[in-house]
Amino acid sequence: MPSFVNRVPVRIAWGDCDPAQIVFYPRYFAFFDMATQELFRAATGMSKKDMVAKYNLIGFPMVDTRAKFMIPSAYGDDIIIESRVTEFRNSSFDVTHHVLKEGGKLAIEGFETRVLVGPDPAKPGGMKSHKIPAEILAAFDK
Amino acid sequence: MPSFVNRVPVRIAWGDCDPAQIVFYPRYFAFFDMATQELFRAATGMSKKDMVAKYNLIGFPMVDTRAKFMIPSAYGDDIIIESRVTEFRNSSFDVTHHVLKEGGKLAIEGFETRVLVGPDPAKPGGMKSHKIPAEILAAFDK
Amino acid sequence: MPSFVNRVPVRIAWGDCDPAQIVFYPRYFAFFDMATQELFRAATGMSKKDMVAKYNLIGFPMVDTRAKFMIPSAYGDDIIIESRVTEFRNSSFDVTHHVLKEGGKLAIEGFETRVLVGPDPAKPGGMKSHKIPAEILAAFDK
Amino acid sequence: MPSFVNRVPVRIAWGDCDPAQIVFYPRYFAFFDMATQELFRAATGMSKKDMVAKYNLIGFPMVDTRAKFMIPSAYGDDIIIESRVTEFRNSSFDVTHHVLKEGGKLAIEGFETRVLVGPDPAKPGGMKSHKIPAEILAAFDK
Repeated sequence: MPSFVNRVPVRIAWGDCDPAQIVFYPRYFAFFDMATQELFRAATGMSKKDMVAKYNLIGFPMVDTRAKFMIPSAYGDDIIIESRVTEFRNSSFDVTHHVLKEGGKLAIEGFETRVLVGPDPAKPGGMKSHKIPAEILAAFDK
Repeated sequence: MPSFVNRVPVRIAWGDCDPAQIVFYPRYFAFFDMATQELFRAATGMSKKDMVAKYNLIGFPMVDTRAKFMIPSAYGDDIIIESRVTEFRNSSFDVTHHVLKEGGKLAIEGFETRVLVGPDPAKPGGMKSHKIPAEILAAFDK
Repeated sequence: MPSFVNRVPVRIAWGDCDPAQIVFYPRYFAFFDMATQELFRAATGMSKKDMVAKYNLIGFPMVDTRAKFMIPSAYGDDIIIESRVTEFRNSSFDVTHHVLKEGGKLAIEGFETRVLVGPDPAKPGGMKSHKIPAEILAAFDK
Repeated sequence: MPSFVNRVPVRIAWGDCDPAQIVFYPRYFAFFDMATQELFRAATGMSKKDMVAKYNLIGFPMVDTRAKFMIPSAYGDDIIIESRVTEFRNSSFDVTHHVLKEGGKLAIEGFETRVLVGPDPAKPGGMKSHKIPAEILAAFDK
């Protein structure tokens, strides 16, 4: 498992919450998407935009994602999203996110499998999986 | 497995999509949340608001959710979300959502476990699980 | 003023609402963006995607928008968004949206000025305003 | 005009952007809503939650808002939202937001009129405007 771990602080906004006064859970997936980008930025020094430009990618769309919700959060709460890649394969990879509340309590576990994709040269407008560059792999093991 | 199935049409909006020109996946979870409410409305004849008022609930927050993405959708696409409860337990229940594209092709499978909660009489501002009312169970087997 | 008017029904979802139990107002701007696209679709018979492809556009980004909120709405409410173009200029145009509640009561007035843009041939990756095609103008006066 | 000014940095996320590769403008209103809360937090030392609890409020819903868009932003961009109250009246107040890009360039001007509301004692479930507390007024002139 790559050793690199990143932590992003998030302050829950009023607009992230629903009439039950807690975070509307789809918002966590938007946080996780941001956290995965920040994880790559922290490991490689490249923003997603830089990565997309450098390797001629479209992005790294989601293949499979799951989240288990243990403790709710409300607006004004400060959480930490702790993210790491748990496995790199040829063109796909797994990320886990831990949402931590005050005192380090685990509030949510998120899992995702993504695949690196670029334009498909054989199909204009189409996408095709793209091998994970060796320097990205290396960046996660520093 | 309760026999009731509901289908909700969704037209993908420009604002549901991201720079890769496809739906930003957290939006699907917002669609699924809406689809679960429409499923209960179609089965019971009650809106979520009516249910919350009638049974003194806070809502049915998410405990565990997962989605597998097979075919992307873009803005202007018309999809169908086909939803059913696959299991009712004492106070929790499982829902599956199938996102269907033109020709009935399965684009996404969504799974969720939710729990019915109401105010905790022992803790002001707290929540507590709530038994699923018999008439709701009955409504899903009609 | 072009005579064409379009009406789109929207059912307010749980996730559109905030801890005050009413719609989180940024959601209305997402509804209005969708309503402007549906207005053009209804008038011209073309989806935004078709328009973008046919005239080589990037889109019609917002220049100036305003909304006045008179009556709040809550989840489960059914509203109608009534939209019309109030003025077409060379490459920009104004739209108004009226959010109507039961009984036709005016809940929100929205105003927007947008500009049609396409790729700037002089600047790779840049945008440039684009004249509104005559057949679009004609479609709004039928 | 109250002298207090607050600045909040925001990093534009992939999911904030649309197929034109720029921020989907309704997202700015969510940023502004957060920025208004951070403005009050910075001036008064109280989170919105604290304010709501202390003065028995429901919130400060939007009455009228406008935004003028001069320069677009894309994912990965870092912006600053600079916010101030331009006028306090009995129970309503005006806020302006300036979105600043690198080099301090003004990208967006946002305006909002909000009203402080609390529960209406005469109407269960209703809202009623609430006088702005003197200590909040004082906090903005320090």
